[in-house]
Amino acid sequence: MQIAMIQDRIMPAEDLDPVYFDRGMFFGDGVYEVMRSYDGRLFALEEHLRRFARSLAAVEISGVDIGEIRSRIRRAFEAADIANAKIYFQITRGSGPRDRVWGANLKPNFFLTVSEVGDSTEEKTKGIAVSTFPDWRWKRCDIKSLNLLPNVLASNDAARKGCSEAILVDQAGLITEGSGSAFFAVRGQVLQTAPLTANILPSITREFAIKAGRNVGLEVHEESLTPGQAAGADELFLAVTTKDIVPVVKFDGTAIGDAKPGQYTNLIMREFRSFTA
Amino acid sequence: MQIAMIQDRIMPAEDLDPVYFDRGMFFGDGVYEVMRSYDGRLFALEEHLRRFARSLAAVEISGVDIGEIRSRIRRAFEAADIANAKIYFQITRGSGPRDRVWGANLKPNFFLTVSEVGDSTEEKTKGIAVSTFPDWRWKRCDIKSLNLLPNVLASNDAARKGCSEAILVDQAGLITEGSGSAFFAVRGQVLQTAPLTANILPSITREFAIKAGRNVGLEVHEESLTPGQAAGADELFLAVTTKDIVPVVKFDGTAIGDAKPGQYTNLIMREFRSFTA
Repeated sequence: MQIAMIQDRIMPAEDLDPVYFDRGMFFGDGVYEVMRSYDGRLFALEEHLRRFARSLAAVEISGVDIGEIRSRIRRAFEAADIANAKIYFQITRGSGPRDRVWGANLKPNFFLTVSEVGDSTEEKTKGIAVSTFPDWRWKRCDIKSLNLLPNVLASNDAARKGCSEAILVDQAGLITEGSGSAFFAVRGQVLQTAPLTANILPSITREFAIKAGRNVGLEVHEESLTPGQAAGADELFLAVTTKDIVPVVKFDGTAIGDAKPGQYTNLIMREFRSFTA
Repeated sequence: MQIAMIQDRIMPAEDLDPVYFDRGMFFGDGVYEVMRSYDGRLFALEEHLRRFARSLAAVEISGVDIGEIRSRIRRAFEAADIANAKIYFQITRGSGPRDRVWGANLKPNFFLTVSEVGDSTEEKTKGIAVSTFPDWRWKRCDIKSLNLLPNVLASNDAARKGCSEAILVDQAGLITEGSGSAFFAVRGQVLQTAPLTANILPSITREFAIKAGRNVGLEVHEESLTPGQAAGADELFLAVTTKDIVPVVKFDGTAIGDAKPGQYTNLIMREFRSFTA
């Protein structure tokens, strides 16, 4: 018989809820999405579902019906009745014995939460401070997986420094992205962000930010920045699902421009809002 | 109110067991150990506890009493009454709202299982085949964390090729270690394995294998191997907690020596067994 122990309580393993044997817990063997609604309307649902399907395929979790996921999201969103809702959902490969090689009979576990989007008015009007941290993540950040410990460590380092986000810097000394956001600089008439590679999440908000940037007259360069170039940029901002555009006014202690949200950043923010209406 | 959904069932989030909000699930925000007993005696308990304490400190999970963990392990091991037991235990940072920045009031979650060690007689007498896979892991593999998706993908690729273990190769073209093991080569009178860096787990079985290698008259070189050097080695083996020494007789399809466990490997296996008596 297999014995299990939770805190200091011993019990037969077979008495436990299968969630304790979820491969999401043992290995982070799963993928997730975060999306939101604006004023009662889900934003970019299809884009998130497409990326989710891509993540599932990349880690070879099969047997998930995306149509069924779509209808679950809609049902939960309606049940929650929150106008500005944040929707988190994950699928893990299933519950089973702790074996790295996955068995044939695993059934994927779906979990979702709907909560209120936090108020980001102050961040959006005053801007935030960010700090850099080494990019310790794995080499397939194009997959939105549950392996987020490096992001947790980076975010906490930033918080300890009084900053709202960690900007990750790879071993070549280039900025990849934020711990939970895409990172943008405005330099002259150019909007610059890292190109999509295996080390970058294909952020949906990033795509809309690029579109907004073009709409307000900027030229878009997908090219990585160094921390020095970022600190010397005219404007900086983050693109993140729950808050869309967040101006960055301090980078590793250096004020950006006049330490207020930049003019293009404000234009992009307004343009972005028009996409969500 | 926050809504949750498990599979297709909607419920208030507050009705759920806190395990659903475990940061181990959301982020892999936790660390673990695997140890075993030989014939009713726990092997290298203190070494595993020391490494566990190091992992906890590295990810800043505090408030864990290692003495308490030691006594839990002993209690569970006695309750299970399995002579050759595999003991898995993990601590996550705790359950709470899904926020990368950890709150001050989190209470670590401890989970442990005791099960029978699988029989590895055949692997140990006939040897196993291994195949290479890119090392996609994060840059702090010296921490034994729950972020194991790259290992899962590597192990599954090996299984698909009819191999028992994936040997990870980094971007410089050097072997780091196995997906769940340390990797050794015997070349002439030299026992060779990768040096301990941030990309290598300080494996306890590795330390005992090195000691055993010296005891049987080999010189130890801690120096990374290329796949080509591994394929051309006189002998190869893995060091892994649950099976200690496992001969490797095939590397990416190439037979090693005469495709039987090597003589030094067998001597090291015997020597290792004397440590566990």
